[in-house]
Amino acid sequence: MENFGGKLAQAVRSKGNAVCVGLDPRLDQLPDSVRLGKSPAAAYEEFCYRIIDVVAPLVPVVKPQAAFFEALGPSGCSALANVNAYAKQRGLIVIMDAKRGDIGSTAEAYAEAYLGGQSSEWNCDSLTVNPFLGDDTLEPFCQACTTNGTGIFVLVKTSNPGSAFIQQAQSSQQDVSEKVARWIAAKNALILDKCAGGYGPIGAVVGATYPEELVRLRETLSNAWLLIPGYGAQGGTAKELAAAWNADGLGAVVNSSRGIIFAFRKSNQVGHDWLASVRQATLDMIADLSCV
Amino acid sequence: MENFGGKLAQAVRSKGNAVCVGLDPRLDQLPDSVRLGKSPAAAYEEFCYRIIDVVAPLVPVVKPQAAFFEALGPSGCSALANVNAYAKQRGLIVIMDAKRGDIGSTAEAYAEAYLGGQSSEWNCDSLTVNPFLGDDTLEPFCQACTTNGTGIFVLVKTSNPGSAFIQQAQSSQQDVSEKVARWIAAKNALILDKCAGGYGPIGAVVGATYPEELVRLRETLSNAWLLIPGYGAQGGTAKELAAAWNADGLGAVVNSSRGIIFAFRKSNQVGHDWLASVRQATLDMIADLSCV
Repeated sequence: MENFGGKLAQAVRSKGNAVCVGLDPRLDQLPDSVRLGKSPAAAYEEFCYRIIDVVAPLVPVVKPQAAFFEALGPSGCSALANVNAYAKQRGLIVIMDAKRGDIGSTAEAYAEAYLGGQSSEWNCDSLTVNPFLGDDTLEPFCQACTTNGTGIFVLVKTSNPGSAFIQQAQSSQQDVSEKVARWIAAKNALILDKCAGGYGPIGAVVGATYPEELVRLRETLSNAWLLIPGYGAQGGTAKELAAAWNADGLGAVVNSSRGIIFAFRKSNQVGHDWLASVRQATLDMIADLSCV
Repeated sequence: MENFGGKLAQAVRSKGNAVCVGLDPRLDQLPDSVRLGKSPAAAYEEFCYRIIDVVAPLVPVVKPQAAFFEALGPSGCSALANVNAYAKQRGLIVIMDAKRGDIGSTAEAYAEAYLGGQSSEWNCDSLTVNPFLGDDTLEPFCQACTTNGTGIFVLVKTSNPGSAFIQQAQSSQQDVSEKVARWIAAKNALILDKCAGGYGPIGAVVGATYPEELVRLRETLSNAWLLIPGYGAQGGTAKELAAAWNADGLGAVVNSSRGIIFAFRKSNQVGHDWLASVRQATLDMIADLSCV
């Protein structure tokens, strides 16, 4: 089974950039041409399909945010599975941003749900995972990754102002982010021992908004992909991200959601040309990151 | 808007016990009479409906575990919403165990999804929430609770062997569980200042498997409901739970999932009488807890 870390490296190399487009639909922000005359779930599908059409030739990864789909109820969940399937058909890697986490057999059920590969109805390649419940609770997710060639991104340092509340709760030796990062690096080392490639399937979410932690965590996580939210709308800049990449030019994908998918609202291109704004914002981000 | 903490107190008083029945369906464990000739999602609905019929007159609360439903794909999500609706129709309080958590507007979307009261299609009264992303990320959930009369249970100390990995990452002064607990107590105090009743809408998940922490956290969390997993199948006993209740006899609900819903497998009552085993296991748990 191909290792997700290697699969992601291949995708980033093939597109020549590390941009991840976040699919965070909100009903009141959709163009009228997409929203009117449809159910909210159908409008979300249509909106995401059209964005995927635009970005699929340009970027390697999309990241649908489960919360916005779940906010519509079960019909939103069906739309989410359909959007994931559409993105995969278009050759994109799908990171489902659902921040799941639970204990024992419940973690197994989440892993089966989202990391089961061909047998999963959610059609994603990778899942964001919350480590709060403990290292033992990450094991079923890792197991599913190695069995099915899927991947996870464990929350290490999130991009919000209050992330220090738990993640930086200092002991004298080691904060929580560093502890989780070391666990990920050790796990990838174990897994990589058994398969080829420099990056394991266990990645880390590290916010763009904390550049110092990014430097430190990049060092700890040399064999892991970083998924970096917080670029653009949340304030992280390309310059601050220079430290995110390893010497091989790989090892990080940078997410932008609102800055790309709602770019037409900024430029007032809310009519037929809304997708031109989405395309231009994607190209701008690719250019911005390549200047790093 | 009625406060969820008060609503739960009323339900526990009215049923005379603090039992929460966990709805964790698994396809390979269902009775043949429920499973055969149906889609997995329809079988989960049927299984949960019949259990709800049995337990609704006996206990105040049910806790569907989202992971097992999500493992079926979108059809499982529809089944989950239907099960929640059925439980509410039968007068039960529904705690959706989905351990959600995210930042900013994404947390708002989860809060809208599950804590929106009448406007939510998920039909739950309360949601389990993961605090790892920080105190700022809990605010949108609290806001939804006060607006809609719904509640949350924040993970404080989970019942699994590895819970210490992050939750007990010691600083010299205060571990993470204690820090989250103090935040909950302060938040409830603020909210209760504006509405009647001794218990706020922000509860805490505290595992039955760590009796010493339970004593300490009960003290910190005098104005919060505890949701206590780990009784029965996971090894927590009624005696160890004595410290879970406040002097008013309220303040904790104790969950059992497998011990009740799969009781028929233990007694080999897999035929028509499987619900008699479920009923007996519920009565046994009520009796066991009343001896505390």
